[in-house]
Amino acid sequence: MFERGLTSAPLPTVILKRLEHPIVQAPMAGGPSTPELAAAVSGAGGLGFVAAGYLSPERLREDIAAVRAATDAPFGVNLFVPGAADVDEEALSAFVARLGPDAGEPRYDDDAWEEKLEIVRAEAPAVVSFTFGCPSREIVASLSSEVWMTVTSVAEARTARDAGADALVLQGVEAGGHRGTFDDPPGGGEGLSTLALLRLVDSSDVDLPLVASGGITDAAALAAVLAAGAAAAQLGSAFMLAPEAATNPAHRRALAEEAPTGLTRAFSGRLARGIENRFMREHDAHAIRAYPHVNYATSPMRAEARKREDPDGFNLWAGQTHNLAEEKPAAQIVRELSEGAYAALKAAAARRA
Amino acid sequence: MFERGLTSAPLPTVILKRLEHPIVQAPMAGGPSTPELAAAVSGAGGLGFVAAGYLSPERLREDIAAVRAATDAPFGVNLFVPGAADVDEEALSAFVARLGPDAGEPRYDDDAWEEKLEIVRAEAPAVVSFTFGCPSREIVASLSSEVWMTVTSVAEARTARDAGADALVLQGVEAGGHRGTFDDPPGGGEGLSTLALLRLVDSSDVDLPLVASGGITDAAALAAVLAAGAAAAQLGSAFMLAPEAATNPAHRRALAEEAPTGLTRAFSGRLARGIENRFMREHDAHAIRAYPHVNYATSPMRAEARKREDPDGFNLWAGQTHNLAEEKPAAQIVRELSEGAYAALKAAAARRA
Repeated sequence: MFERGLTSAPLPTVILKRLEHPIVQAPMAGGPSTPELAAAVSGAGGLGFVAAGYLSPERLREDIAAVRAATDAPFGVNLFVPGAADVDEEALSAFVARLGPDAGEPRYDDDAWEEKLEIVRAEAPAVVSFTFGCPSREIVASLSSEVWMTVTSVAEARTARDAGADALVLQGVEAGGHRGTFDDPPGGGEGLSTLALLRLVDSSDVDLPLVASGGITDAAALAAVLAAGAAAAQLGSAFMLAPEAATNPAHRRALAEEAPTGLTRAFSGRLARGIENRFMREHDAHAIRAYPHVNYATSPMRAEARKREDPDGFNLWAGQTHNLAEEKPAAQIVRELSEGAYAALKAAAARRA
Repeated sequence: MFERGLTSAPLPTVILKRLEHPIVQAPMAGGPSTPELAAAVSGAGGLGFVAAGYLSPERLREDIAAVRAATDAPFGVNLFVPGAADVDEEALSAFVARLGPDAGEPRYDDDAWEEKLEIVRAEAPAVVSFTFGCPSREIVASLSSEVWMTVTSVAEARTARDAGADALVLQGVEAGGHRGTFDDPPGGGEGLSTLALLRLVDSSDVDLPLVASGGITDAAALAAVLAAGAAAAQLGSAFMLAPEAATNPAHRRALAEEAPTGLTRAFSGRLARGIENRFMREHDAHAIRAYPHVNYATSPMRAEARKREDPDGFNLWAGQTHNLAEEKPAAQIVRELSEGAYAALKAAAARRA
């Protein structure tokens, strides 16, 4: 399944150049990501990801083993970089109080950072990617996997390069789920779009392979970022209706509709994009920066709403183009988007003889 | 200069298909736009625009005549659709008070809407485009020009289609200057990126030629939107350093630097994107929806800062990728971006044999 897409360029040093299809499955922690989805994408010639965020270390080991049992193809594991534990305790108490009696206890943890690092050191998946921050040079050097870092600005891209990243995942503001900013800046930051971020980093002094992410759900958008210099695209919403994804049924129904998304800290205390719903409308104006504290506080309420399949009660993470997603097996999505993208590129190039 | 790019498709009904280069110069009212810039872009095989916003009717007539004197090529004229006169008078007074003694008198006007419509009816430029709203079917039918409408969402695209638009300018959130939303929604709206908006409208029931706008400053970004289905791209920042543009020297210097942009109502009372500066930082948090009232109030302060070439005192409108703009004659920009875009498309298509 590899080597087919090889050009006559110097031997590739990053896995991106060995993929048959320039498609990476976005790690979607907290629900949609499954070992089956990662294995299906990797098995089809894209690159699947295990989303380590929120998993127990034991479960992470099991998920990696499950992908390996299903495919010999390379895949990646994504880790959340822990942030600061300090929050405005008064503001946090006030926000949790307004959530009502069903809220859980807010608390901090580092998502089992050291244990998960130990696991990816030992398991050595083809790629380890990081989100929510930049690990130290020492950590990067301790990994025998290729290291990708998620960035949202040129400044973060430079920091990631200096820490030893092998490739960058450029996350535009269109992306569903949490913004991958290193510090969750109060106003939300500049909010560079996928295409703007891609052009700015590609034109900068950062010389690394780039994976474009955010708002890429169909073949034409994939064609766009390939034309603009991306080595591949990382797609989330595009895979959320696949049978291999563990997307909640109410979430699936919401994704398929035309519905506006918005950025909010209401669900987790960190800025994230989801389809606007009642929970977001009720709590967004009061939401605070306190991750993962707020995530723990809302966790039982969201779990209960998921059980009821109530789309107004939990986080409907979705990118801006979510309703372009199609309900198809993941392998078919990979093949059709890749073939469609190259057909679109050829057609566009042919407009000028 | 036309017909060269023709395919074997049915005879084109819109001017977009007759352009040698798929490049439209964004109308940049209030400064950078000049008849020289419009004529240079049109003369080179793109489509130049006269920005009628803020011009007196006499000056609009003169500018149209000046473009016609300089080139036989088709060009467009962009009009602002007037909004509601009602504002929160108390909030307006408070905002003007905090601007200080140098503020001007806030007031409403309709930017000489009826007179300017009369002028474009009489002059019949190749294209008349509208921003800030959707003119009625009657107005559209009264024009003998091709009618384009600026939209920022699928809902606005449908409204524009139903009013009789011949083509749509899709303005993504990356764009510099004012957002073209019909109603300047309080929270700013969903803020669809150029690529997301393009894919959503192109995949919708709206079947019109699409001009992508916002964040497109270099050849690779132009290639991206062409691959994603745009008939052409509308570029603003890309032309702001051209000698034909009347961009203030302080504004030119700011555009050339890496500097974050932000959306603000501080300068005009309507959401617009510019490079962050002192004026924006001082007034953004207090800014209100009141256009063009606030625009008149800040007008003398901005004029004075422009005279002093003080980049902290006036609106440095700029798209998210402004620092990719190059200081070159407009005709050269048109040719190089077009050629570069087709080269990028061919290279991307060639990755897959």
